[in-house]
Amino acid sequence: MVAAKEYKVIGTRPIRHDGTDKVTGRAQYGADIHLTGMLFGRVKRSPHAHAIIKKIDASKALALPGVKAVITNADFPRPPEGVGVTDEGPPQPWRFQVQNFLAENKALYRGHAVAAVAATDVHIAEDALALIDVEYEVLPPVLDVREAMSDNAPILHDDLFTKDSAPLADAPAKASNIAAHTQIKRGDVEKGFAEADIVLEREFTTTMYHQGYIEPHNGTAYWGRDGHLTVWNSSQAPFVFRNTLSSVLQIPAQKVTVIPLEIGGGFGGKLYMYLEPLAALLSKQTGKPVKMTMTREEVFESTGPTSGTYVRVKVGAKNDGTLTAMEAYMAYEAGAFPGSPVGGGMNGIVAPYNTPNVLVDGYDVVLNKPKTAAYRAPGTPAGEFPGDAVINEIADMIGMDQIEIRLKNAVKEGDERPWGGNWGPIGVVECLEAMKNSPHYKSELQGENRGRSVALGYWGNAGLETSSSASVNADGSVNLVLGSVDIGGSRPALAMQLAETLGITAEEVWPRIVDTDSVGFNFFTAGSRTAFAGGWAAYELGMEIRKQMVARAARIWECKEDEVTYSDDGVIHGPKDSEGKDRQLTFKELSGQLNRTGGIIDVSVNINKSSVGPSFAGHIADVEVDRDTGKVQVTRYTATQDVGTAIHPSYVEGQIQGGVAQGIGMALTEEYHYGADGRMQNSTYLDYRMPTALDLPMIETILVEVPNPGHPYGVRGVGEVCIVPPLGAVQGAIAEAIGVRFTDLPIQPQDIIDALYDE
Amino acid sequence: MVAAKEYKVIGTRPIRHDGTDKVTGRAQYGADIHLTGMLFGRVKRSPHAHAIIKKIDASKALALPGVKAVITNADFPRPPEGVGVTDEGPPQPWRFQVQNFLAENKALYRGHAVAAVAATDVHIAEDALALIDVEYEVLPPVLDVREAMSDNAPILHDDLFTKDSAPLADAPAKASNIAAHTQIKRGDVEKGFAEADIVLEREFTTTMYHQGYIEPHNGTAYWGRDGHLTVWNSSQAPFVFRNTLSSVLQIPAQKVTVIPLEIGGGFGGKLYMYLEPLAALLSKQTGKPVKMTMTREEVFESTGPTSGTYVRVKVGAKNDGTLTAMEAYMAYEAGAFPGSPVGGGMNGIVAPYNTPNVLVDGYDVVLNKPKTAAYRAPGTPAGEFPGDAVINEIADMIGMDQIEIRLKNAVKEGDERPWGGNWGPIGVVECLEAMKNSPHYKSELQGENRGRSVALGYWGNAGLETSSSASVNADGSVNLVLGSVDIGGSRPALAMQLAETLGITAEEVWPRIVDTDSVGFNFFTAGSRTAFAGGWAAYELGMEIRKQMVARAARIWECKEDEVTYSDDGVIHGPKDSEGKDRQLTFKELSGQLNRTGGIIDVSVNINKSSVGPSFAGHIADVEVDRDTGKVQVTRYTATQDVGTAIHPSYVEGQIQGGVAQGIGMALTEEYHYGADGRMQNSTYLDYRMPTALDLPMIETILVEVPNPGHPYGVRGVGEVCIVPPLGAVQGAIAEAIGVRFTDLPIQPQDIIDALYDE
Repeated sequence: MVAAKEYKVIGTRPIRHDGTDKVTGRAQYGADIHLTGMLFGRVKRSPHAHAIIKKIDASKALALPGVKAVITNADFPRPPEGVGVTDEGPPQPWRFQVQNFLAENKALYRGHAVAAVAATDVHIAEDALALIDVEYEVLPPVLDVREAMSDNAPILHDDLFTKDSAPLADAPAKASNIAAHTQIKRGDVEKGFAEADIVLEREFTTTMYHQGYIEPHNGTAYWGRDGHLTVWNSSQAPFVFRNTLSSVLQIPAQKVTVIPLEIGGGFGGKLYMYLEPLAALLSKQTGKPVKMTMTREEVFESTGPTSGTYVRVKVGAKNDGTLTAMEAYMAYEAGAFPGSPVGGGMNGIVAPYNTPNVLVDGYDVVLNKPKTAAYRAPGTPAGEFPGDAVINEIADMIGMDQIEIRLKNAVKEGDERPWGGNWGPIGVVECLEAMKNSPHYKSELQGENRGRSVALGYWGNAGLETSSSASVNADGSVNLVLGSVDIGGSRPALAMQLAETLGITAEEVWPRIVDTDSVGFNFFTAGSRTAFAGGWAAYELGMEIRKQMVARAARIWECKEDEVTYSDDGVIHGPKDSEGKDRQLTFKELSGQLNRTGGIIDVSVNINKSSVGPSFAGHIADVEVDRDTGKVQVTRYTATQDVGTAIHPSYVEGQIQGGVAQGIGMALTEEYHYGADGRMQNSTYLDYRMPTALDLPMIETILVEVPNPGHPYGVRGVGEVCIVPPLGAVQGAIAEAIGVRFTDLPIQPQDIIDALYDE
Repeated sequence: MVAAKEYKVIGTRPIRHDGTDKVTGRAQYGADIHLTGMLFGRVKRSPHAHAIIKKIDASKALALPGVKAVITNADFPRPPEGVGVTDEGPPQPWRFQVQNFLAENKALYRGHAVAAVAATDVHIAEDALALIDVEYEVLPPVLDVREAMSDNAPILHDDLFTKDSAPLADAPAKASNIAAHTQIKRGDVEKGFAEADIVLEREFTTTMYHQGYIEPHNGTAYWGRDGHLTVWNSSQAPFVFRNTLSSVLQIPAQKVTVIPLEIGGGFGGKLYMYLEPLAALLSKQTGKPVKMTMTREEVFESTGPTSGTYVRVKVGAKNDGTLTAMEAYMAYEAGAFPGSPVGGGMNGIVAPYNTPNVLVDGYDVVLNKPKTAAYRAPGTPAGEFPGDAVINEIADMIGMDQIEIRLKNAVKEGDERPWGGNWGPIGVVECLEAMKNSPHYKSELQGENRGRSVALGYWGNAGLETSSSASVNADGSVNLVLGSVDIGGSRPALAMQLAETLGITAEEVWPRIVDTDSVGFNFFTAGSRTAFAGGWAAYELGMEIRKQMVARAARIWECKEDEVTYSDDGVIHGPKDSEGKDRQLTFKELSGQLNRTGGIIDVSVNINKSSVGPSFAGHIADVEVDRDTGKVQVTRYTATQDVGTAIHPSYVEGQIQGGVAQGIGMALTEEYHYGADGRMQNSTYLDYRMPTALDLPMIETILVEVPNPGHPYGVRGVGEVCIVPPLGAVQGAIAEAIGVRFTDLPIQPQDIIDALYDE
């Protein structure tokens, strides 16, 4: 670890505040909600990937004893005047959002929700689903992103027109599956390719990948007769959910309360709502609380994985490794409704390198699969992998070390970013140097069929709004009120930053995540923003508490406030007393005197900073390929990452290890298998194969600390960039091991066997 | 209603925010808590009023399948060094508190908790109680306050010595049932009696009265293996409960979270804990959440009613009605442990009148009944009733109107209070004038056996600590975060004060009561402090939001902040624009621009004000006595009260009507019947007879508004003083009707019959 500023609490490894609850089962998740008089809801889903819904008849279901209500899309309030389909540009998200909650006229993917039922128990609700008659006119589905873009493809939305972002404006004025086309452009790629000694062009694909959280989606809603809706759920964005529910159900925001429970994994997938609006409407109809949870099959078939992608990349380089041009064409599956993370891939492929000439075209494409969702550094793993693959291939062609070629082209502070603006202090070179100097990279590979490669990843991170408050208890403990849910250790990370500021211990701070009524607006827990923005809030809360503590001490000592100092160890010093003795109070001592000096201290702040520090990560993978079975074993893995300041190193390491595991899954084992009818063939965790602890080596981590100057404690987001490099590193290592450069992920044993023997 | 300052929101009658939930059953009370894996606890109670506990054997109970734990007093942690019994003065409350949770060596009243059990269902827990063998040595109980003070009374606590407050210091150094003796003294009563034309001395008693809330006490506790205790309950004081649990269970405050549910009535009785510490210990032993609720019998026999009392009062007056001296001796039952509200009675009897010579002695006495609790204006009804009775008798003797004698002696702003300090603006004279001018007092009584009388009540009200926060939503609605539970309409009362300050509507403010982690310390909801202190907090939150809104508008208009004004109707005005047009934004419009001008507004405050306005109330009662059955019918009742500013007049009127109903119950029907063995004979709502709507006339209210200058909106507490006058007014009206001046309350039909025919 590169040494950073000395802190007392930051950089230590206290037990997380929610740790014991989570390992002993006391933590309350969405499934732990039980309300008096509760009903249970289930969803009727389309068995077809593409079909017109001609009729829905719920009369038989409603006649089943115990069934209390059935809803369809028609039960959603219609959009207010001026919202919805317009003649110019794309339809508003409002309509698409509601159509994904419950299909309107067409079912657009297998598993698309068509109706929902509430009953007195879950078994009756399940039985009722079979009694809802839906008459379909089945249409041919389109399941591949390139086919969906072709002229003769089945069209999902009659009123969707390609939206070009400026400066492009030459889109055809006819309905299309292409929802948007965006571009990054710098210099002149044709000139760049002309200057190159080597020009390499390759095509790549990745499949859809699911985030693979353990806890299925859940939501319980209770719509009061005064119109106040309360929702309990496990999500990454209670305030955003509140606003969305307010919008689609047409209730004022202060009449919606979202109460977040613990979340059993999200990784971006729990930024999206599926059940809550249905539970809300069922509750409105029945006057009872309605609880809904998904099965695993529903999670796979009906929630958002990340995009399947097609990427064509062309890179020009001189013989000394200098990159002269990079051109990429990226087509990302959005699923049934617009909105893929193609932008993440577009930024990712160009970010790490000072390529003078750049042209990236990105396409957002709808097709008959579930609407994609965010998944850890959304869109970037699939977009950056092709860049790593091509650069590693060029390095091998010119006989240059794979780290050296990256060092030669690496971006540094002050360099221009391909999409505008300049880089601040970033740790690309520091990560590459840490890789070079690592025991792993210095070690020699032993044995046959073994290979080693590297990759370099980027993620921009996010700032956005965070509100938080804190109060000092009479015993010197401090309550910290948070509005962002904890998906990866944010409770300790934020409590530690407040403790550092106050000069007390992490254990003396009790972080509490509250509902949307109880603290100001907080944007989602995503974009690696929580430790950054929440930490900044904790710092400002701490500084305000220090200021008020100084005022209290001045009152006790009957001196001026500027005669009192608050030292970083949490001791408040005053002027010497009449006998010449030092006057001082510890934080705890002064806390005990707050009541008699005007009351306890209770402060709140709102933070909205854009000075996020981007993250870079460099990974090294060793693999061994079994030529008999095609199995690829990752034998050693080292992840370096510029983490800004590691607030709680164990959780930073844990984030990195988790991201690597998921990235390796994308490279080797995870895959949505679709039949030609658009039905997923492997919607269980037995068949959708995520790496387990037995499949992975111990992931070694090297924390590089280049503090973000845009944060009081130098924090950069750490949770996302770590999922980016594994795809390129593993694919590259397989190439080194057996000489086959695969272009389609995942690389399954059958692919290895096919490549080694059948071609 | 006397006209007060003009407001837009204050003084209107919006529907309360929690109203629909409470009438439709959606509101969540303690009994609505269901946790995964929950156990159920029950309490084994003493069948004896006074007994030494020789042995507790739980082995048979523990052998019953489904029983998970049994606890006794020995399971409480022992007090830390230096806390507990001391040689000087009384033992610390710590020990008494724990001994009331579970008896230590002696059971001190019938129903005293002796052991508690947790089992997988409540029926098994119930069965297990019978299997816990407790060996008692039964002692004679003492059940009357005067007997308990006598030399040969059974002594409850061997180590309790009478504590005299300064300036008294002549207490005997031997164990006693008298826990404390306090005094109010002004002038020289002997001189005052010598100056009087009439001296009247009378003795009075009142029985114990229960608050009669509908919802029994309940508490669910979950003690995590990390030592963090979470408690769900219905109480009036979540933060105080947190601190008490922290103290008696020896856990740091930040490791205890109390989550308040709605409360189905409290009236002071839910300021005390009974079940929560037991549920906590049972949860600690079992590792599971444990839920406990009381039966009605347990509520009566084992929770705190108000004190039975004995009061002797002697008043001297001149023939023109001028009071010259008042002497009172007050002995209040504390129940089994020290701490009666005798102080409330002592203040109450002397407060309303400018009596130059005053001597009040109060005694706090333990005896073999449940520990008393607060009950609406604690101690004052029983203490002020004797004063009213004697003054009414004097008025009748000298042929003076009962209101005029009070006007002659009434305290006014600037007068000295008997216990020191001076009265601020108070509404005694205004209430008396309102009574005189009321249609009720001007009407003539018709028919025989009818009488009318009046009484005057005082309650001091409380300030104390309140923390609160508020945030502005993008749609212009405002969330208001409260830490005080709502027992009588505080949600609308506080939301309205914030709305008034901001110039928005009450409905646009959403008040939310949160747990002890989620806002700073709030003292109890009691002492009529919530509308006062919470309202002050709401005002300061509003003023801070106004200030920040002005700054945002200045940023939008690119002008100085002092060029922007926030008008009371919630419109923000700026300087004219370059075309000379007025610039203005509504609160809602500006709220929508907060995000782009730096983020939403989220503010918090802590209030700790002592400038409470005391409350006075004057009541008029008409009764008709049925000479055949002894039944007393209250035929008309008018309550005037100085309410400061009536924030929500309907809830002020409701508070007054509720207080009157309870006071009439004390006067006529409510009573704890004890057998000689110390067993309560009437522990059901059939036999403990509270007045119902059928027993009462419509209570007429006259709101007198003398704004409290110590509050931005002139608020005085309104909830308590209204219970004080009914006792004296009803007793006096009976005296006028049948010529019998009863001195012992309640005045039951049999007492009327006895008085009319047997004497």
